[in-house]
Amino acid sequence: MNAEIICVGTELLLGDILNSNSQYLAQQLASLGITHYYQTVVGDNPERLKKVLAIARERAELLIFTGGLGPTPDDLTIETIADYFQTPMAERPEIVADIAEKFKIRGRVMTENNRKQALIPVGADVLPNRTGTAPGIIWQPVENLTIMTFPGVPSEMKVMWQEVAVPYLQKQGWCDKTIVSRTLRFWGVTESSLAEKVKSFFDLQNPTVAPYANRGEVKLRITAFADNHTNAVNLITPVEIELKALVGANCFGADTDSLASVVGDLLKNAGQTLAIAESCTGGLLGEMLTAIPGSSDYFLGGAIAYSNQIKEKILGVNSDDLAKFGAVSDIVAQQMAAGVKEKFASDWGVSITGIAGPGGGTDDKPVGLVYIGIATPDQQVTSLECRFGGIKGRDWIRNLSACTALDLLRRKLIGA
Amino acid sequence: MNAEIICVGTELLLGDILNSNSQYLAQQLASLGITHYYQTVVGDNPERLKKVLAIARERAELLIFTGGLGPTPDDLTIETIADYFQTPMAERPEIVADIAEKFKIRGRVMTENNRKQALIPVGADVLPNRTGTAPGIIWQPVENLTIMTFPGVPSEMKVMWQEVAVPYLQKQGWCDKTIVSRTLRFWGVTESSLAEKVKSFFDLQNPTVAPYANRGEVKLRITAFADNHTNAVNLITPVEIELKALVGANCFGADTDSLASVVGDLLKNAGQTLAIAESCTGGLLGEMLTAIPGSSDYFLGGAIAYSNQIKEKILGVNSDDLAKFGAVSDIVAQQMAAGVKEKFASDWGVSITGIAGPGGGTDDKPVGLVYIGIATPDQQVTSLECRFGGIKGRDWIRNLSACTALDLLRRKLIGA
Repeated sequence: MNAEIICVGTELLLGDILNSNSQYLAQQLASLGITHYYQTVVGDNPERLKKVLAIARERAELLIFTGGLGPTPDDLTIETIADYFQTPMAERPEIVADIAEKFKIRGRVMTENNRKQALIPVGADVLPNRTGTAPGIIWQPVENLTIMTFPGVPSEMKVMWQEVAVPYLQKQGWCDKTIVSRTLRFWGVTESSLAEKVKSFFDLQNPTVAPYANRGEVKLRITAFADNHTNAVNLITPVEIELKALVGANCFGADTDSLASVVGDLLKNAGQTLAIAESCTGGLLGEMLTAIPGSSDYFLGGAIAYSNQIKEKILGVNSDDLAKFGAVSDIVAQQMAAGVKEKFASDWGVSITGIAGPGGGTDDKPVGLVYIGIATPDQQVTSLECRFGGIKGRDWIRNLSACTALDLLRRKLIGA
Repeated sequence: MNAEIICVGTELLLGDILNSNSQYLAQQLASLGITHYYQTVVGDNPERLKKVLAIARERAELLIFTGGLGPTPDDLTIETIADYFQTPMAERPEIVADIAEKFKIRGRVMTENNRKQALIPVGADVLPNRTGTAPGIIWQPVENLTIMTFPGVPSEMKVMWQEVAVPYLQKQGWCDKTIVSRTLRFWGVTESSLAEKVKSFFDLQNPTVAPYANRGEVKLRITAFADNHTNAVNLITPVEIELKALVGANCFGADTDSLASVVGDLLKNAGQTLAIAESCTGGLLGEMLTAIPGSSDYFLGGAIAYSNQIKEKILGVNSDDLAKFGAVSDIVAQQMAAGVKEKFASDWGVSITGIAGPGGGTDDKPVGLVYIGIATPDQQVTSLECRFGGIKGRDWIRNLSACTALDLLRRKLIGA
């Protein structure tokens, strides 16, 4: 079984959007043990799409299309595929009903152009789109060729892939080998120093170990190839244990863990609550914490204290200290953390104050200077000075600030 | 002149890396007015790379390769291209000297495998790599076919593209036309209803108009093809004016505008300030507002009032109303907005309270039910009930909530 990924969209040819669908599908195919050798991008053009289809069917038995399923005239993936195989299209009433229902739920009326999305080649199966209006198809137009179509919207495509495509592919018996990966996640260590520490692991053949770095976080991905999931996991586990023992507390979790989810679990297990005070991150730390379902169990809330008056009025920061040391200082970070803990009656208080830039920096206090304060349940108040530098910009500094605050809290919670 | 982008690398087929090079090159080609109709990804495999080359040379006159130029055995792009055209390779001493010098600067000794990077097909020109060790080539192996190769490392590829490739392409006279795009951005309208309204524009040939939707936002991209930038803009402008007149206040901006930047500009121009109170979005609205540099001019801060006690204590929400109507209600949204406006002494107060799920929904108050409150400078307090539905999940609901709050504030600010 050989697959090919074909992404359709003039916006990809104009560089308007990043082709993240190809990466997702590539990862998915690898994890299912389905090889693919080619990926193609083509615009919303029937003639060229047909040429791509003619080439792809010669070199793959499973063609995965994304994009061009919407209600507008330039969405023509399915009708072009049907035309290529000289197959008529027919409206499927269950799709019309589903689209109408989805419009109704949101209090809107289905427009006529949405009916276009209900046209499916005769003989094809519907690949339902639970979270959007444009369904795909699963179709064997000829022997030894299966075509799947997905919308270009990544969130819809992923749900359809997981809920419908994967079970279908497994049922066909096309997924008999498997690649399993486990990604260990690290904070507070650079990629090069981590790589130096674990470099002997990079020579392993199965599983392999490879380092990645992204927005201040470092990852080690352990990948095993085996007959089945259990055997792959059995190859991974001893390597994971060795790596964790070697690296210690810098490893905060694995796979879908985030600093916020790990901190949340630790707080929940301890039966403790948290409140936060944010200046330069402006809500980002709160956003990260509350992205975790169930975070209301331990997260009470916080203050976005962007102006100095709010730091004084809501958090009780001392106005003399603000004037003397400035808003970006150890002492103000500590008063913000202690203040929010007291005001919100939480067990922990965490604060961030810094200069995210691009303006506002001085020689003494450059862009990227950030202070993180922590007030603990036993009334200790400390702070950490961070110098993230200015060259990578505002988003980078804000993200690093919020993640470092979470990591600092994590280390306090585990006593590291 | 027709180009094709070919990215070489097994890591792309495994989904280990995101293919950002394709997007960059696509944008660059568009801005230079060089059309391209196809992008291909292929692994580090000589036979398959040759097949891709055979297909691409039939449909394009400029082939742009990225990846596979490094010192390791699986880097074989250039030697495979030379082999395809049955051309011998020769070591170029100036490349060996350049690589040796770069190693010396970093205090390292050049290893033998790096000499591989100095092998270039006879008759090809070197495409120098100022910031890395692997150079590319510019080569006309046959008439009407130009091949350029770049390393896969995006930062090196971009420098080589800008410093060498662009001047080369311009000198050949291949960039005498240009493509310019302008993207109008909309909130509060579905893709299908917007498309219905402006459908006559989709038949235009130059400029073209095409719709896109992403995370609740809808976009119309106007793309013009012309001899130069000014003429392209002159084609776009009248269409832009017509579209804006047709669609009205649903159009919030264009290109790099965001709802937060537009709201920020409106507040700054009005000399007014804003404070916010967030429940289910947990800081996301504040994060969006403060992502804009200079937002401290108008954004004072806010309260993340995740628990009911905080809603009472910090925002002065009435405890009887909380008990009677629940935290997710029109009246609580209004009290939160009015409360934060008063407490923070701002001109505007905006609040969000809702059920982001996946838990916490009831028949009466399902997941996706969100109330947005606004308190205006002239002491009016209103609220908006939104039903975003539960099927797209927590992130979707939170994003829609924050964006809808920004959009509501925008409409109040422009009196729409």
